[in-house]
Amino acid sequence: MAGIADVAARAGVSKATASRALSGSGYVSEDTRVRVRAAAEALGYVPSAGAVGLATGRTQNIGVVMPYVNRWFFAEVLEGIQQTLLTHGLDLTLYDAKPGTTGRARIFGDFLARKRFDGLIAVGLDPADHELDQLTQIGRPIVSVVGAGDQASIVAVDDDSAARRATQHLITLGHTDIAFLGGGDRGGTQWAHVDQQRLAGYRRSMEEAGLAEFERHIASDVTLPGGYAVAADLLGDTRGRPTGIVAVCDEVAIGAIIAARRLGIAVPSALSIVGIDDHEFAEMFSLTTLQQIPREQGAAAVELLLAEIADPARPRTRELMHARMIVRTSTASPSV
Amino acid sequence: MAGIADVAARAGVSKATASRALSGSGYVSEDTRVRVRAAAEALGYVPSAGAVGLATGRTQNIGVVMPYVNRWFFAEVLEGIQQTLLTHGLDLTLYDAKPGTTGRARIFGDFLARKRFDGLIAVGLDPADHELDQLTQIGRPIVSVVGAGDQASIVAVDDDSAARRATQHLITLGHTDIAFLGGGDRGGTQWAHVDQQRLAGYRRSMEEAGLAEFERHIASDVTLPGGYAVAADLLGDTRGRPTGIVAVCDEVAIGAIIAARRLGIAVPSALSIVGIDDHEFAEMFSLTTLQQIPREQGAAAVELLLAEIADPARPRTRELMHARMIVRTSTASPSV
Repeated sequence: MAGIADVAARAGVSKATASRALSGSGYVSEDTRVRVRAAAEALGYVPSAGAVGLATGRTQNIGVVMPYVNRWFFAEVLEGIQQTLLTHGLDLTLYDAKPGTTGRARIFGDFLARKRFDGLIAVGLDPADHELDQLTQIGRPIVSVVGAGDQASIVAVDDDSAARRATQHLITLGHTDIAFLGGGDRGGTQWAHVDQQRLAGYRRSMEEAGLAEFERHIASDVTLPGGYAVAADLLGDTRGRPTGIVAVCDEVAIGAIIAARRLGIAVPSALSIVGIDDHEFAEMFSLTTLQQIPREQGAAAVELLLAEIADPARPRTRELMHARMIVRTSTASPSV
Repeated sequence: MAGIADVAARAGVSKATASRALSGSGYVSEDTRVRVRAAAEALGYVPSAGAVGLATGRTQNIGVVMPYVNRWFFAEVLEGIQQTLLTHGLDLTLYDAKPGTTGRARIFGDFLARKRFDGLIAVGLDPADHELDQLTQIGRPIVSVVGAGDQASIVAVDDDSAARRATQHLITLGHTDIAFLGGGDRGGTQWAHVDQQRLAGYRRSMEEAGLAEFERHIASDVTLPGGYAVAADLLGDTRGRPTGIVAVCDEVAIGAIIAARRLGIAVPSALSIVGIDDHEFAEMFSLTTLQQIPREQGAAAVELLLAEIADPARPRTRELMHARMIVRTSTASPSV
């Protein structure tokens, strides 16, 4: 069986170069890569990943840790990460660290410590203090998509600003009784940082407009059925019904629209609803929302991480993306 | 710095055993694993993944290839796979092979050939012939979740039976003008095998009931907005409107319900809709459906794959799961 030395000899390069070329890492010229691959193919040589890793000191693999893969934001970020890694010839190892599970404890305690990656992207992870310690101990570059702290670089949308503008939009239309729907401490999972920031943005806007007395937060699971269930309960009681709702995200906003429709409450004439995300269903529900593009956040996180892998001394950065307002027909003046 | 030999000596085991214990592979007793880990911890030893792979001949990693991660079925299967791999101490490398992209060609041509996994799970992949050749050449065990052919073991729901029972349900209620909504050749991506099987089940039921003249298939993207768009078009014309719809999946069915509501068509009194999936939104839309549990399919695929890795001579199997009917209130007799 042909070894890497045979491939290197045939291609006229060093063993190390042949190894890098075959690992798809991008640290050799395209010309050399083509020549080495042709040699490998001619000799029927297939590199073992372990051997490549030992030769280059790199795993050619990026770890991605996220608490959910079946929610829109996370799935879209993952797609953005995956597509960008693909163009760099890098693999993606996925760690699904659902809050409050033993699986999560195992991922932090065992899996990540194996360091089978050159760097890590943490998406909406909200690590507890001891988890943060474990992440720090890994000693590999980390980039967060959404998150707090200054230990890692962060890519995120400006959540505070997005929530403030969503709230101001309703205030400008003439609403005063505006509720904030969704997020919060429920079922033992912690209050996500991003949701807290959005609630804070809503509160600040209400206070600045002299509407502090109307401030209220109705907690819900941050899902479409979660928004539906809580909105059905809130809207079913005519006395306590607000005229405007700022939802923590589009999934919760859309759940509220579905609940309103089933209760015969016209949106927007009797109830205005604004979301944050521009979810793939937003257009279908004519939802006014603040748009973020999670795929772009995933792509930006990869580029940032690769820069930090190449230069570990690179200063940590914070890329805050601007959420663009998309006005559809779920919001209107309350007098209509 | 402590090496694997130091850890092995301290734990009183061979280097190979220490290596297996630290790789989390499960091929050593729990007792030994605990002892070796304690030794590694005491010495501050962290194994390199590459070294572990060379020592054991295993990567301790399973590859997962799927065309989408942001659709319900795929995300749920992925969760089931991930959770099951976690209990076995195995990593998951994700390959997102969207049909018709250059990324997909690169995954089949380059990434998979690196064989950085002990086995592969292909989810709803529908490989083209040349892709099938590439998969075969990898020479590692493969299990398909959903799929055709007999080269790999398959875990799936019995789609033909599910679609037949969905159709028979409407026929039993008294419907004759029943359309099949969703799936098909659109936008250059191929007609998914699973969707074809469901359409075939619908056709067989219609023919057996003497309703062949009513047979019609309205193609759509297999997404909620895709079902919405096509249903709005179909239902907007009162002359061509069916009384019953069998949807290729719940996402398309729910899109059709949303379209019907916006058009003022009462479900189920003026239109019955049945889906296949039991999607997380099904309850919220009171959707009658045939239930599949994709997480269980993901978990079953992992167990099957591990059995084939342990015994490559194991015969290929086909696990067809039964879809249970869940009757909610989106279906009723057409005379109501």
